[in-house]
Amino acid sequence: MSETPDSAVRTYIDRHRSAFLDDLMQWLRIPSVSAQPEHAEDVRSSAEWLAAKLRETGFPATEVWPTDGAPAVFAEWPSDDPQAPTVLVYGHHDVQPAAREDGWDSDPFEPEIREGRLHARGAADDKGQVFFHTLGVRAHLAATGRTTPAVHLKLLVEGEEESGSPHFRALVDEHADRLAADAVIVSDTGMWSADTPTVCTGMRGLAECEIRLHGPGQDIHSGSFGGGVPNPATAAARLVAALHDEHARVAIPGFYDGVTDLTDRERELFAELPFDEEQWLRTTASTATHGEAGHTTLERIWARPTAEVNGIGGGYQGPGSKTIIPSSAMVKLSFRLVAGQDPDHIEKAVRAWAADRVPAGIRHEITFGAATRPCLTPLDHPALQSVVRAMGRAFQQPVRFTREGGSGPAADLQEVLGAPVLFLGISVPSDGWHAPNEKVELDLLLKGVETAAYLWGDLGRNRRDGD
Amino acid sequence: MSETPDSAVRTYIDRHRSAFLDDLMQWLRIPSVSAQPEHAEDVRSSAEWLAAKLRETGFPATEVWPTDGAPAVFAEWPSDDPQAPTVLVYGHHDVQPAAREDGWDSDPFEPEIREGRLHARGAADDKGQVFFHTLGVRAHLAATGRTTPAVHLKLLVEGEEESGSPHFRALVDEHADRLAADAVIVSDTGMWSADTPTVCTGMRGLAECEIRLHGPGQDIHSGSFGGGVPNPATAAARLVAALHDEHARVAIPGFYDGVTDLTDRERELFAELPFDEEQWLRTTASTATHGEAGHTTLERIWARPTAEVNGIGGGYQGPGSKTIIPSSAMVKLSFRLVAGQDPDHIEKAVRAWAADRVPAGIRHEITFGAATRPCLTPLDHPALQSVVRAMGRAFQQPVRFTREGGSGPAADLQEVLGAPVLFLGISVPSDGWHAPNEKVELDLLLKGVETAAYLWGDLGRNRRDGD
Repeated sequence: MSETPDSAVRTYIDRHRSAFLDDLMQWLRIPSVSAQPEHAEDVRSSAEWLAAKLRETGFPATEVWPTDGAPAVFAEWPSDDPQAPTVLVYGHHDVQPAAREDGWDSDPFEPEIREGRLHARGAADDKGQVFFHTLGVRAHLAATGRTTPAVHLKLLVEGEEESGSPHFRALVDEHADRLAADAVIVSDTGMWSADTPTVCTGMRGLAECEIRLHGPGQDIHSGSFGGGVPNPATAAARLVAALHDEHARVAIPGFYDGVTDLTDRERELFAELPFDEEQWLRTTASTATHGEAGHTTLERIWARPTAEVNGIGGGYQGPGSKTIIPSSAMVKLSFRLVAGQDPDHIEKAVRAWAADRVPAGIRHEITFGAATRPCLTPLDHPALQSVVRAMGRAFQQPVRFTREGGSGPAADLQEVLGAPVLFLGISVPSDGWHAPNEKVELDLLLKGVETAAYLWGDLGRNRRDGD
Repeated sequence: MSETPDSAVRTYIDRHRSAFLDDLMQWLRIPSVSAQPEHAEDVRSSAEWLAAKLRETGFPATEVWPTDGAPAVFAEWPSDDPQAPTVLVYGHHDVQPAAREDGWDSDPFEPEIREGRLHARGAADDKGQVFFHTLGVRAHLAATGRTTPAVHLKLLVEGEEESGSPHFRALVDEHADRLAADAVIVSDTGMWSADTPTVCTGMRGLAECEIRLHGPGQDIHSGSFGGGVPNPATAAARLVAALHDEHARVAIPGFYDGVTDLTDRERELFAELPFDEEQWLRTTASTATHGEAGHTTLERIWARPTAEVNGIGGGYQGPGSKTIIPSSAMVKLSFRLVAGQDPDHIEKAVRAWAADRVPAGIRHEITFGAATRPCLTPLDHPALQSVVRAMGRAFQQPVRFTREGGSGPAADLQEVLGAPVLFLGISVPSDGWHAPNEKVELDLLLKGVETAAYLWGDLGRNRRDGD
C-alpha cells in the first residue's frame, strides 16, 4: 500500500528525462574548477545557475551563500506537514580540473552522450548526483499528488569540495540554524557496481601531522663525525618504523581508544560483497595486500583506523652520493580514524608517542593540520532503512552495505547539526572521478532520480509512523 | 749518534725559509679548483708549476701524468744506495672552490701572512703540506752531506682529490710499476693541535649504496586504499630503522665479520688525548653524542665501523599535506669500514639483509657506488716508528696517535702497491679546510719541513739496520 505507486514515478521520469538531461548538460558546460583561480567566475556562475534552476524546480527559497572562497547554494522546500522530518542533502557544484589534452576523447566541458553514458567533467562528481534530486523531488510530488515534499527538504551544494572544502566548516557553523536537520543525505559517493546497488554507512576521519627533526646545526661529514652523533634522518625513519607493530597494527599507545569495532553482522555483509581482490589490487597498481592482522582488505580500508606516511625526506636526495649526516629530516603522517576515535585524543597520543621516541640530541616539532571526524550510521537506523528501501524499489534488487575509506566534509555536518549522515550515490568505480573521460551511466543516473522520488515519501512516513 | 745533527737541519731551514715561502705563495696564486670547469687550465698550470719546481729542487725525474680528468705530478729521486727503501709521498695540488664573498678577509688566491699564519685557499689542504717536502729533502741532503736522499724518494701529487679522485685508481693501476714503494707517506691530514703533535695510523673505508623501493604503480589515495597495501616509504623507513640495534650497533648480519678491534693499548692512547667532548660537540653543532655502546666518542668516529643514512625521500615533501600512499621511496646509505672489513663482503651482506626485510608487494633495487678500503698501520710498524721519531725530534714533544674517520684515495695506494700507509700532516683543526680564511700556521709548516728532513734519514737507517 504505497502512497507513491512506483509506476507513476517511472512514468513521470520517462516523460521529463530529456529536459532533465538538457538542463544537466547546460550546467556541465560551466567549467566550475575551484582549484584554478582563472575559473573563479565560472564557479560563481555555476552557483547562480543552480540557484535559478532550483527556483524553477519549485524550491520556494534558494540562496547563494558567499564564503571566503567560492560560494555555496542553499535551497529549502518546507513540507506542508509541520510534523515532517527535516532532511538536508549535501553535494558540491565545483569540479576537478580537466583539459582535452589530458586524454579526453571529447571536450570535458562539452557534454556528450555516447552508448548510454554522459561524458563530461562533473557528470558523476558531483553535478549529476546533485542534479538527480531536482527531477527526484518533482517525481515525488507528481506521483503522490502533493504540492510540497513529504519532508522538509533542504539542499546545501558547496563550491570548494575539490579544493579541500577550506571554508565549509565556517559556513556550516555560520548557518547552523538554517541547516538544522534530522538527517543528512550525502549525494557525493558511489555504489559497488551497476549490478550491486549499495548504501555507504560511514566514512573514515582524518588527522594529519608533519614532524620535523633537527640534528646538527648544518649537514656534517659522515666520515669525520659518523658514528658519534645522532642522525635526524635515522630518527625520522625510526618514528615511521615504530608506527606499526608486527601485526601491522598501529603501535601508538592509546590510538585504538574508543574504536567502534565492526559487528559480526557488518563483517558478514562485507564478506557477501562480490569482492575480487586481484582486480582491486590492479586498481591500486600494487602487487600484494598488506594490513592489520585479523581483518580482510575491505575491513582494513573501510572500517579500521590506519597510520600512513605520506612523505618522508631528509639529507641528500639527488643523483650519486653525498657523505653527510643531514641537519634535519621530516615526515608527514596521516591517520584515518573510525567511529569512536577523537582527533584531539589522537593528536595527544601522537605527540606523547613522538616525544617518547625521539632520541637525545634531536629536537622535534609537530604540526597538526585541521582534522576531519569519522562518521558512521548504524545499520538499523530508521533513516538508513528508508534509503535502503527507496534504493531497493528503484533498482529492484537487494541493497548491500559498504563504507568509504576516505574522509569528507559530511563529518562537519554530522558534528555541527548532530544529525546522522546517510549516503545516496549512484556512481560506479568506472566513472573516472578526477580522471579523463569522466562519465555517468544514464541508467544509473535515472535510478538515482527514482530513488530520491521514493525516499522523501518513505522518510516522511517513518516520521509520522513514529510520532 | 745521529747522521743528521738536528741543528744543521734547523740552520738550513732558517736560511731558506724566506725563499720557500715565496715559492709556496706563488703556487697558491694559481686557483687550481678541480671542481670548477672554468679552472681546468689553472689545474693544468698548477701541475706544470709543481713539476718545474720539483726539478729545480733536484728531483732528476719529474713528469706530468694525464688522466681522463685533471693531471697528476710524479717525481722521483733515487738514492745512490741501491739497498735503500722506497718511499712514496702522496698529496694533491687541486683545491676547494673559494670566493672572497664567501667570507674571506683577503683574496683566497692572493696569499697573505698575518700574525704568523699564511692565509690562502690550499695553504693547509694541501699545497702547504705537499710543499714542505721540497725544503725537507734539501735540508736532509744539506745536513747529511748526501747528494741523493737516504731513501728512494717518489712523489705523487694528484689533481682531483677535491672532486673525489674519480680517476685516481686508474692512474695508480696504470703506473703501478713506477709507483712501487715499501711505504706510502700521506701528507694530506692533520694533527691533534699545535700543542699535541700526533700521527694518524689509519683511515676508515667507505661503501655506499642507494636503495629504491617501489610500491603502487603511481601515488594512490590514502583514504581509499590506506591500510590495505604496503607503503614503500614505510618500507624505506623500516630498513633505516633496522640498521642499528638498541646498542647502536649495526644490525646487518655479517657486518662486523673480520673487524680488527682496537687493542687495549690503542684505547689507552686514545684516552690520553686531551679530548674535550663539549668542544667537539660544538664543532658538530649537535647537542648530544650518540653511538655504539661500549665505545668512547673517539673510538666511535675513528676506529669503529658505522652505518649512516645520508638521504631519505619518498612521497610528498612540499608544504601542507597530500593524503597519498607514495609510489616509491629511496634511501642513500653509507658504511664506514675499518681494517679487516671487505667492501665486497659488506655489499653482499647489505643486499641479503635488504632482500630479507623488504615486505611482499614492494620491489627494491640496490645500487652500490665504488668502495674505498680501510687502511691501518700497526703501532709497532718500523716505518711508523720512524715517522714518530722524526716528528718527535722536530716538535721536541712526545708524539701521540690518532686515526681518521673519513676515507681517502690513500687506500688505493695501499691496495695496489701492497705498502703500508703512514700519515705525516701538520695541519690543525682550526686551519679551516674547505672553509673561508683557510690558513696554515707557519711554525707548524716549518716543523713539517723539519720532520721530513729527519724522516728520510731515519727510514733509510731502518732499512740498512734491518739488512
